[in-house]
Amino acid sequence: MSSPLPAGVITCKAAVAWGAGEALVMEEVELSPPQPLEIRIKVVCTSLCRSDITAWQIVESVGEGVSEFGVGDHVLTLFTGECKTCRHCTSGKSNICQVLGLERRGVMHSDQGTRFSVKGRPIYHYCAVSSFSEYTVVHSGCAVKVSSNAPLEKICLLSCGVAAGLGAAWKVADIAGGSTVVIFGLGTVGLAVAQGAKLRGASQIIGVDTNPEKKGKAKIFGVTDFINPKDYDEPIQQVVKRITSGGADYSFECIGDTGMITAALQSCCDGWGVTVTLGVPKVKPEVTAHYALFLTGRTLRGSLFGGWKPKSDLPALIDMYLREEIQVDEFITHNLSFEEINRAFDLMAEGKCLRCVIHMPK
Amino acid sequence: MSSPLPAGVITCKAAVAWGAGEALVMEEVELSPPQPLEIRIKVVCTSLCRSDITAWQIVESVGEGVSEFGVGDHVLTLFTGECKTCRHCTSGKSNICQVLGLERRGVMHSDQGTRFSVKGRPIYHYCAVSSFSEYTVVHSGCAVKVSSNAPLEKICLLSCGVAAGLGAAWKVADIAGGSTVVIFGLGTVGLAVAQGAKLRGASQIIGVDTNPEKKGKAKIFGVTDFINPKDYDEPIQQVVKRITSGGADYSFECIGDTGMITAALQSCCDGWGVTVTLGVPKVKPEVTAHYALFLTGRTLRGSLFGGWKPKSDLPALIDMYLREEIQVDEFITHNLSFEEINRAFDLMAEGKCLRCVIHMPK
Repeated sequence: MSSPLPAGVITCKAAVAWGAGEALVMEEVELSPPQPLEIRIKVVCTSLCRSDITAWQIVESVGEGVSEFGVGDHVLTLFTGECKTCRHCTSGKSNICQVLGLERRGVMHSDQGTRFSVKGRPIYHYCAVSSFSEYTVVHSGCAVKVSSNAPLEKICLLSCGVAAGLGAAWKVADIAGGSTVVIFGLGTVGLAVAQGAKLRGASQIIGVDTNPEKKGKAKIFGVTDFINPKDYDEPIQQVVKRITSGGADYSFECIGDTGMITAALQSCCDGWGVTVTLGVPKVKPEVTAHYALFLTGRTLRGSLFGGWKPKSDLPALIDMYLREEIQVDEFITHNLSFEEINRAFDLMAEGKCLRCVIHMPK
Repeated sequence: MSSPLPAGVITCKAAVAWGAGEALVMEEVELSPPQPLEIRIKVVCTSLCRSDITAWQIVESVGEGVSEFGVGDHVLTLFTGECKTCRHCTSGKSNICQVLGLERRGVMHSDQGTRFSVKGRPIYHYCAVSSFSEYTVVHSGCAVKVSSNAPLEKICLLSCGVAAGLGAAWKVADIAGGSTVVIFGLGTVGLAVAQGAKLRGASQIIGVDTNPEKKGKAKIFGVTDFINPKDYDEPIQQVVKRITSGGADYSFECIGDTGMITAALQSCCDGWGVTVTLGVPKVKPEVTAHYALFLTGRTLRGSLFGGWKPKSDLPALIDMYLREEIQVDEFITHNLSFEEINRAFDLMAEGKCLRCVIHMPK
């Protein structure tokens, strides 16, 4: 005995997590119309990350005040936004939007409410995107319009990990030609850093991963020396210092392990070594490092989404892909249907995929 | 019953530390002639730092292969050197000379020997300079020739703390005009950072020190807001964040306390905040900080001697002083004789001085 839906509300299938760590459950959800400055979109394909979600979508309807998007536009959605008016968006130095950044906690910016519900029970949004659903509502500041001729099932990877890695190499570390680079963790993010380093002309790109199966992919993206810490009796930073004659010019932590941030700092050279941390640690959030690592000239920086501003910077990255200047297809190891979404999570947990693209029902 | 001295050896008075933490004892020391690439110099005045020594001196004799210095030249000596040939000296990115840097441990580079002895018992050098002596021997790479019209008893401060602070502000942080700056610790180094920030046009310079007597000096060097943590019930980083509307653009740790490095990181803003650590911690050498401080855009860097290369950069700093573009005299709170050297250490330990200049016997 269901009551009629309010005006504008649609129903669709969505994968819902009813609790932390629980498998996603397919549910029939109700989705409200977009509120001011929001857009409602049909999800075409999506993917997943260790820390968040990437998606490519089509605008279904737009809320009041949205002039940038029209119905039928192709869009990428992003876990972080760009309001273009806050102190950070206008600084030229930061991509951490103060309005549409990471502070949101599962609700929409305009009214702190949710647009999803199941039988009237509100469902929180996830990472501003909530793309594990046939339709979703996002703030227009978290979406980027893309050309309709861009291959949707590929460029969706540019809204998270691949762009994050390239930006860490180019914008945050600003790798110089001829330099030495070491990357801890060869998932999609780490391999995208390798690609970024290769395109900058790095002379040596060392990839560190405990999974020996990463070696083949590593080579494709530019890794010149694959190192498995399990093959050595000594700390990995000593191995890196030896093969780089004193330490790398740049090191990147792409695992999400604060112990590895310390190893990354110890792996880079004194005088000018730069360590960039990209991972989101699941345990032990404190980074510890001996002060002398800094005093002797090392720098530690973080990189969130590679320093890219979504609206300002992503279109140029997509153009680079269309001109075949960057590799994206090579990150896709699996194409799965929406119904198989929990298998995608399993593959990720088991380290058996780089990126699974999830195709929504047509 | 003393045996005659070997050729070239001179004797003079020096303040010797016979053990860690022990007061200096005036001794008659023997000093060998300079070996290849070394110079022997008459010390005119010197000073002391929490971590090392600054001095101004006159060349007494030169060793084989030294063409840069002649007898009678005025020189500043430095705790770190510049060989001009190692990978770091030629990099354009580092002042951490691999030949004459911090790796030396009380002995001379050429033969790993010492030039000092007391009744034949070898005495180690200190910080490459060993200036608490009427005469000393240093590597020519650790000395800078200065114009004979520069006021000796003032510019000696430019061979350590004052230059370290200015360089941290200018070369390492590269402070931009209109920015906000917070400095932890208002000793000579911290106040030199303040001066550097002021000369770069910083709009707000917050000085943090638990000694209320620092307030007057702080104003002279450009501090706009003096904060004493003892006046607040909340963590000092919260106070800084409040008065800077979210965090300073730059923060500097000039105490040598790794806990304060964490507070300095927490005191600077996300997106582009830069923390520079200059201090040399006496206890707890590990820096700890939550990873999210980095992920949200903060950078932690170290600064050793402000990034200055001694020979390449110091002459320009001395010229700035001679043109009255930087303040140095204002750091000198005491002028003491060599015999009073232990009083200078006491004043420093008690926080009652900025810099004591120690004048050697004529």
